[in-house]
Amino acid sequence: MQKSALQIARSAYQPKMPAALLGEVRVKEGAATESVADQKEIKQLFPNTYGLPILELVPGKAGQYPAINVGVILSGGQAPGGHNVICGLFDGLKRLNKESKLYGFLGGPSGLIEGKYKELTADIIDEYRNTGGFDIIGSGRTKLEETWQFDNGIEICKKLGIKAIVIIGGDDSNTNACVLAEYYLQKQCGIQIIGCPKTIDGDLKNNMIETSFGFDTACKVYSELIGNIQRDANSAKKYWHFIRLMGRSASHIALECALQTQPNVCIISEEVERKNLTLNDVVEQIAGAIAARAEKGLNFGTILIPEGLIEFIPAMKRLIRELNDLLAGNDEFVAISGDEEKRQYVIGKLTTEASELYASLPKGIARQLTMDRDPHGNVAVSQIETEKLLIEMVGKKLAQWKEQGRYNGKFSALNHFFGYEGRCATPSNFDADYCYSIGVTATQLIAAGKTGYMALVRNLTAPAKEWVAGGVPITMMMNMERRSGKMKPVIQKALVELDGKPFRYFAAHRDLWAVSTDTFIYPGPIQYFGPSEVCDQPTQTLKLEHQA
Amino acid sequence: MQKSALQIARSAYQPKMPAALLGEVRVKEGAATESVADQKEIKQLFPNTYGLPILELVPGKAGQYPAINVGVILSGGQAPGGHNVICGLFDGLKRLNKESKLYGFLGGPSGLIEGKYKELTADIIDEYRNTGGFDIIGSGRTKLEETWQFDNGIEICKKLGIKAIVIIGGDDSNTNACVLAEYYLQKQCGIQIIGCPKTIDGDLKNNMIETSFGFDTACKVYSELIGNIQRDANSAKKYWHFIRLMGRSASHIALECALQTQPNVCIISEEVERKNLTLNDVVEQIAGAIAARAEKGLNFGTILIPEGLIEFIPAMKRLIRELNDLLAGNDEFVAISGDEEKRQYVIGKLTTEASELYASLPKGIARQLTMDRDPHGNVAVSQIETEKLLIEMVGKKLAQWKEQGRYNGKFSALNHFFGYEGRCATPSNFDADYCYSIGVTATQLIAAGKTGYMALVRNLTAPAKEWVAGGVPITMMMNMERRSGKMKPVIQKALVELDGKPFRYFAAHRDLWAVSTDTFIYPGPIQYFGPSEVCDQPTQTLKLEHQA
Repeated sequence: MQKSALQIARSAYQPKMPAALLGEVRVKEGAATESVADQKEIKQLFPNTYGLPILELVPGKAGQYPAINVGVILSGGQAPGGHNVICGLFDGLKRLNKESKLYGFLGGPSGLIEGKYKELTADIIDEYRNTGGFDIIGSGRTKLEETWQFDNGIEICKKLGIKAIVIIGGDDSNTNACVLAEYYLQKQCGIQIIGCPKTIDGDLKNNMIETSFGFDTACKVYSELIGNIQRDANSAKKYWHFIRLMGRSASHIALECALQTQPNVCIISEEVERKNLTLNDVVEQIAGAIAARAEKGLNFGTILIPEGLIEFIPAMKRLIRELNDLLAGNDEFVAISGDEEKRQYVIGKLTTEASELYASLPKGIARQLTMDRDPHGNVAVSQIETEKLLIEMVGKKLAQWKEQGRYNGKFSALNHFFGYEGRCATPSNFDADYCYSIGVTATQLIAAGKTGYMALVRNLTAPAKEWVAGGVPITMMMNMERRSGKMKPVIQKALVELDGKPFRYFAAHRDLWAVSTDTFIYPGPIQYFGPSEVCDQPTQTLKLEHQA
Repeated sequence: MQKSALQIARSAYQPKMPAALLGEVRVKEGAATESVADQKEIKQLFPNTYGLPILELVPGKAGQYPAINVGVILSGGQAPGGHNVICGLFDGLKRLNKESKLYGFLGGPSGLIEGKYKELTADIIDEYRNTGGFDIIGSGRTKLEETWQFDNGIEICKKLGIKAIVIIGGDDSNTNACVLAEYYLQKQCGIQIIGCPKTIDGDLKNNMIETSFGFDTACKVYSELIGNIQRDANSAKKYWHFIRLMGRSASHIALECALQTQPNVCIISEEVERKNLTLNDVVEQIAGAIAARAEKGLNFGTILIPEGLIEFIPAMKRLIRELNDLLAGNDEFVAISGDEEKRQYVIGKLTTEASELYASLPKGIARQLTMDRDPHGNVAVSQIETEKLLIEMVGKKLAQWKEQGRYNGKFSALNHFFGYEGRCATPSNFDADYCYSIGVTATQLIAAGKTGYMALVRNLTAPAKEWVAGGVPITMMMNMERRSGKMKPVIQKALVELDGKPFRYFAAHRDLWAVSTDTFIYPGPIQYFGPSEVCDQPTQTLKLEHQA
């Protein structure tokens, strides 16, 4: 493996940790917990892992630990810092007992099910310290949900002498981790399960988990690029840049990037849904900002769009549902030749509201909505290039306004989509420190015999030595939600809260950012070696959330 | 103006300079020069600026300099480091005489023509040290070509007491700078003209100019992103990423990024042209690499594509020329309704070769080639999303091969385009140092009464203190080329040389990179504060070119 100069220099970085993790550690138990909602149902589903106490790691006389073998799984989409969780696990285990071993299950949860693994030795671990990516063992999207999968897990764990499995994943993977923990307790097979909070989307957070790892680095990479584009817009003064950002189920990334870069417009899907806005409303909001800047002679700017926008527009959601119903196994539709003929057929079959909305869409998008289907036969919403859709519709709106004398500017637009550019970036100091600390924390929870917990590191806007490490029972974060028609226990997903401090700060400043010539911020690339105020800052979201 | 933490920290950076510029400086004249070709014609066109000597700045007793007013113009597309050229100019002028003034012409060359300017005072300059962008005075694409423009320039210079104009631009802008210098000498109006070599494309280089500024930073930003994407590809193991990179007239950016990141495939337009490859050849080359990796179970990877590829494919160039001829003012074509009808019409009118190629293109691209026209009525080649074109055609090719049993992999592709993300990035230490040195060098050329020169800083793979500063007569870099049907004197554009060391290194390694699982390099983001081997490296292109 050839390495870049940065990788070589960065491999020597020693992540910062909470003071409590530096010496000998003991586990302090707090009060018993309840789930955030639906206590009765959750308790019934998780008789053995419900109501457990919050845990905190504090300095104290540690016991003598026997050697312990641990397995680790990376689940779902990549997030910067995953390798450091694994490095923290390795170092933490070796600190407890040098004879301990760490096994990585390959390619995600399927590695556990299929018994594919490799032992992670010091040589391997050292290659991956402070690096991005999940390539050390790979990741995967198989869901751990079925009993036979769990039973397969028991077999491979027995073979390898594994006493605990650490699952690094998002809300769904951690929900499944808890189901697995409960099952293994019922089976009394002696395998503990610990989860770790991963996702660049930032939607796995709550009263206990302040942020998921990877969100910090990914947002900083996107903000670097948005800042560069803003500086270009401000220099060339001739383009509107429409920038779509990854994050389908929540707009935390768009909001954080807006706080870091102060663009002219940023759409927050949760607000669109709450206000019951139509696609036309969103188009008019953007066109309005463009027209207002044009009046000042500013025919350029930046617009941030969360990937999930389309699915948060209530009328679009209804249209998509109707399309899915209409087109499922519809041979009549398939038999029609010609895009325009298909389009007219669909227009004739939808309800009035859906039909009007569908007819108003650019033809390319309308085509995409009826032609491209995901493996389940549904509209492939994630394939829709929302930024291009908006450019086309905003352009038409501005042309109308020009005829009406309401707009007199020039509109040239460029489109961007940032997602894969940030998921495997070299972790920021914050994520490197946070992830390593999570990994070490997980080993302490394992040593204390805990299961059904998520490893927890809190107080994240303070210097790392003041961070607080511990564990939170996964059941505490659960409620019951309808999924594929069935009520299921799941970890509550965190959407952008419209009465939360980050959104309120954004809402209080966006009108100024929309028309100003000098409020763009240019964050520049993530720095690892410079002054602490450049290298060690958490996200603006965290800072605002922690503001008194 | 709100600033990011990096901007604040970075504003204190003192660019490194050649030792010769640190103390008192004198100008040493070298031998007289000749243009690289067409000596007779160039000499005739530039009687006053032809044959001037190479200049070198060396330590020596400097004279007493009167206060001198200088104007500066940013011309063409943004490139990281432009602000530092201006900061170097400012500091250099003040060092010569504190009473000297620097004026910035606003919005590019049109600022000179229209007399729009602002004085760049110390307060303003300090806001822009080591920052990206051209926003300090803006840039523009107006060409300085007409006598009336030159005469307007004389007027505003008289008004402001300006004795010299520094033009920061690419090959065309510097060609025009020389025409202007010649004109002003003929007019004996006492205004000197000095050019500076700017362009992220890297195609303004020759025996004297080792690299244009901005190329280093832009390529490092793109390489950061490519590296992140490669790490993602290597973690998820399910996508082929097709990445188009800015750079229409040469493939230096793609080549440099390939050297920095070692992707599985990188197309070099100059090679495609030299080998007279067809679009189908390029498609088969890419499909072949994908099939070879699929045989090893590797259904993922990265492919770099230079923006200008389409125009380097000889048959495509001919097709585009035929389309331009066929469709110019073609009312018959306009009258046809229906995309498919238009397509069939075009297929029927082209020559056999062009017709077959056109018919083989994906319909969306075929439509784009006939519908979207640039302001001159020509096919808008730069609008073509070459990466999507290739994804579609490679997908079809692989499907054919699958039927024939020649390919048995999975092909899922994602597309990216990087350009605006890098043009205004915070300059790397290299570009910050190089640009500042160029600015200071320009002031010394001005003080020595020189005109028709490009400011020159050489020996760039050595530490900055060993860099050599001086000036090269712009005529020396010129030859005669056909432009819009007329023979014109122009600075020779540097294409990727297929017998040059950078390409040869690439060609010697690409077969390995194509199939290997562990040759990806992940450069990470540009660093400003760390160890010198991380922060101060020039491009791989420069390093290879300077290799003994």
